[in-house]
Amino acid sequence: MMLRGTEIKAVVFDAYGTLLDVGSLTAACAAVTADPSACVTLWRAKQLEYTFLRSPMGRYVDFWRVTADALDYTVAHLRLAVAPAARERLLEAWLALEPYPDAEATLRRLASRPLAVLSNGSPRMLETALEHAGLRPYRPHVFSVDPLGIYKPAPRVYEEAPRCLGVAPERILFVSGNSWDAAGAASFGLRVAWLNRAGVPFDVLGQQPDWEIRLLRELTDRLDGPRDARGGA
Amino acid sequence: MMLRGTEIKAVVFDAYGTLLDVGSLTAACAAVTADPSACVTLWRAKQLEYTFLRSPMGRYVDFWRVTADALDYTVAHLRLAVAPAARERLLEAWLALEPYPDAEATLRRLASRPLAVLSNGSPRMLETALEHAGLRPYRPHVFSVDPLGIYKPAPRVYEEAPRCLGVAPERILFVSGNSWDAAGAASFGLRVAWLNRAGVPFDVLGQQPDWEIRLLRELTDRLDGPRDARGGA
Repeated sequence: MMLRGTEIKAVVFDAYGTLLDVGSLTAACAAVTADPSACVTLWRAKQLEYTFLRSPMGRYVDFWRVTADALDYTVAHLRLAVAPAARERLLEAWLALEPYPDAEATLRRLASRPLAVLSNGSPRMLETALEHAGLRPYRPHVFSVDPLGIYKPAPRVYEEAPRCLGVAPERILFVSGNSWDAAGAASFGLRVAWLNRAGVPFDVLGQQPDWEIRLLRELTDRLDGPRDARGGA
Repeated sequence: MMLRGTEIKAVVFDAYGTLLDVGSLTAACAAVTADPSACVTLWRAKQLEYTFLRSPMGRYVDFWRVTADALDYTVAHLRLAVAPAARERLLEAWLALEPYPDAEATLRRLASRPLAVLSNGSPRMLETALEHAGLRPYRPHVFSVDPLGIYKPAPRVYEEAPRCLGVAPERILFVSGNSWDAAGAASFGLRVAWLNRAGVPFDVLGQQPDWEIRLLRELTDRLDGPRDARGGA
């Protein structure tokens, strides 16, 4: 069923790959490798894979630990030489990710509604990174999976949004740049905007997003109508 | 604790990437792309990712369907033109995978013990592929995750081996070419031989294999002692 923007009462964003640019880790990785993009790609892929694996194994550890484990795998796989101090700097780059260029303006324009961030990140990682990215002034509720001890795409994770915001699932728009995350949220019952920056196919998991957008700022037109129709801004 | 081969009463093998060479799909993929290796790599990665995601989502479908979904993603991502008949041929290549060169001889030499295969594959996929690969004469028990409706690395999957073979977990050696699968089995409590054909690092999931081998045939020496010590063969 076609989703109209007026049905949406709250907007919940994924963090990494949605508001915060994981690609900005290349600057830190350049200190340890001549091919920082390959390093970031493998690090991020392993980080996600380890979250996927630890939930069904019943071996939850927090996202900071998973991120460190994925880095250790990446360093070993690429046969990099990384001293302990350099390893710390790489990990701390997760606390200082760059926001996407349209993240701040999008949150500002949507701030008349309840806003939230729902992420695999640990509370400290999320609070620090949102602060650094200048997204704290818009006071999003921050939901970390950490108190639940399970990772996305478990339905229990997405359930936090309607439960804590007091808004029905079908009135919440979940925005994610990760196709599997958008599928997980849709499977639970949230309305979903898939932020497809790279122009890739949607993962084939039996779900479809309500909306597909290329840029975060498309959300404001979708939710509030084109700016012309609102009498300019 | 160091594992001695004499402690092992039964040997359980993973199928895909362990006995059966997923790389042999390149022959079928060459019919639809000039870069069949890239096609196989993405297809296999998405197939595994979809199993990892569907279990926590509570959206189990069988491995044949997951394999088809992963193929559809791969075809879309690589922008290949694949007609329905060609798609069927690609899927059916999973029923005719080549065994690794040392698979048959290894099963033959270990056949004095209970042997089994424990795999994500659907029963039909496993029976057909093992028959085609010439591994049926060694009468392994075939455990598919399908009756359980959940994928590896859930502990419930690995539990099938001791439950059905009537052998204690610590007396069962699980052999897998997939590092995350070896970690899942170790986390449950089986003894584990990781078949590291590619010489890559072990995934950092808080587990370690009991043994690391490069070829399946190393198992016979590990389990029965060097051939010289057994009076030749």
